[in-house]
Amino acid sequence: MLIAVIGVAEAIPQEAAYAEAVGRLIAEGGHTLICGGRGGVMAAACRGAVEGGGITVGILPGDSPDGANPWVTVPIATGLGEARNAIITRAAGALIAIGTGWGTLSEIALAVKMGKPVVALGSAPFLADFAAGAVIWAESPDDAVRQAIAAGG
Amino acid sequence: MLIAVIGVAEAIPQEAAYAEAVGRLIAEGGHTLICGGRGGVMAAACRGAVEGGGITVGILPGDSPDGANPWVTVPIATGLGEARNAIITRAAGALIAIGTGWGTLSEIALAVKMGKPVVALGSAPFLADFAAGAVIWAESPDDAVRQAIAAGG
Amino acid sequence: MLIAVIGVAEAIPQEAAYAEAVGRLIAEGGHTLICGGRGGVMAAACRGAVEGGGITVGILPGDSPDGANPWVTVPIATGLGEARNAIITRAAGALIAIGTGWGTLSEIALAVKMGKPVVALGSAPFLADFAAGAVIWAESPDDAVRQAIAAGG
Amino acid sequence: MLIAVIGVAEAIPQEAAYAEAVGRLIAEGGHTLICGGRGGVMAAACRGAVEGGGITVGILPGDSPDGANPWVTVPIATGLGEARNAIITRAAGALIAIGTGWGTLSEIALAVKMGKPVVALGSAPFLADFAAGAVIWAESPDDAVRQAIAAGG
Repeated sequence: MLIAVIGVAEAIPQEAAYAEAVGRLIAEGGHTLICGGRGGVMAAACRGAVEGGGITVGILPGDSPDGANPWVTVPIATGLGEARNAIITRAAGALIAIGTGWGTLSEIALAVKMGKPVVALGSAPFLADFAAGAVIWAESPDDAVRQAIAAGG
Repeated sequence: MLIAVIGVAEAIPQEAAYAEAVGRLIAEGGHTLICGGRGGVMAAACRGAVEGGGITVGILPGDSPDGANPWVTVPIATGLGEARNAIITRAAGALIAIGTGWGTLSEIALAVKMGKPVVALGSAPFLADFAAGAVIWAESPDDAVRQAIAAGG
Repeated sequence: MLIAVIGVAEAIPQEAAYAEAVGRLIAEGGHTLICGGRGGVMAAACRGAVEGGGITVGILPGDSPDGANPWVTVPIATGLGEARNAIITRAAGALIAIGTGWGTLSEIALAVKMGKPVVALGSAPFLADFAAGAVIWAESPDDAVRQAIAAGG
Repeated sequence: MLIAVIGVAEAIPQEAAYAEAVGRLIAEGGHTLICGGRGGVMAAACRGAVEGGGITVGILPGDSPDGANPWVTVPIATGLGEARNAIITRAAGALIAIGTGWGTLSEIALAVKMGKPVVALGSAPFLADFAAGAVIWAESPDDAVRQAIAAGG
């Protein structure tokens, strides 16, 4: 299964630590990581997945694979700009959101609209208010990956 | 200028009334309405714009113009599914959100990410919490259109 | 019906004359012109349609409506790059190809693949060889528009 | 490097044999195969790449990975329909076309338009006429892969 990790390009240390652990667990579980291919949460998740021996797919907004972070093993330059967010959500069997920015929020909303399971880890309290019932809350990276696999399988 | 009206496909009466008034004011101001081309808020806004003598562009998710509401004068069948949301936000000079659903939320988030002005009218309180500073709040249809034109011009 | 006019951004005089006549006839027939919104064949077709009192939709590759030719009345900035070609062919009820470049060829091929009628006017002989049976050949702008309306209606 | 193999969904035996050999050589050279993920040329190329120990990326038109052929190891369901062709050409460093159908032709045209090297193997003679100078001609699968790597590197 493809599991997406979505999150901001400028991550705080805890978000990066969460993302790296999540990426590693995805790979160790035999799943493929898909993400936006850039920095922050995306880079940390890719690094973790590579450390775990996995494949990492980066769905990039620009025209060239050069914009990918160094741990993307399959860089897909789409040339679609922000519209590429809908491809990440469409391709994923489940999504794990770490932190919250506007791009991340657009992906959460698209995923829920598409009927995909979304697991939130360490996200802002406001998200809990409006996404109650639509988003699955996780307590730890291990819990997030376990719930994503269960919901998307 | 193209002004997008975004909102749910199943609108409550007040949302539909707001949308129709907003559509009419966009047309009367000499602007072009762009939306997702479906029902609810989108249909009401298109009906208002047509009553106001304007053009209405519907960016449709499916493969055929048949899915457009009857007041879409320029139906653009994209075949892109939910990815068409990013085209609405990219093409618009400003957006007016009426009510809130997941599709609408994805468009608000994409628009803010793209640096487009977003005006919210009659939206849920939770939106006010997280979108403070990124979204302009309007008190009435007239206020919403005036602020969208000012911000997008 | 939306009728697409597709062709190169650098048109020779006869191609531009054909395109302007085709655009005018589309508008005079009460149809809406859709195109890539740029120069050459696209600009000439839009100019003709505006002279004929019609609406012209430009599906632009870039992020801004600024790249549209001056006769586009509804500029749709998609931010999708070349992927926007598939939107032109998907949205059109029929297409008229004038001249041949690589972008035009991609649109002809996508349109045939989608089952859309394609009318060729003044196109290169090689196109006649491989497109026989899939593309309708026109002798004049009037013939091209008449056949596009008949096939797409 | 990502190397795309493009071709029809219903391949004749020679096209399938070419595609399988090309896929195997791409994988053995340490490159990643990208394609439309469906049958015919695409399935044969994926089978060859998997036999060669490689990764195969399928950029699918539909909403689900279920439409992928059995040798796609990374299925990307885009939900974009034919517009996904532009993603294959954008993401690839070089393309190898085997046989010719309308979908393949759209990808060749988009690739040339984007400035990507296109190598043709066993394609119809008409293609040679109009693509002379824009497309590289190969005599064998080995020649095709060697030229694709040289041109795209």
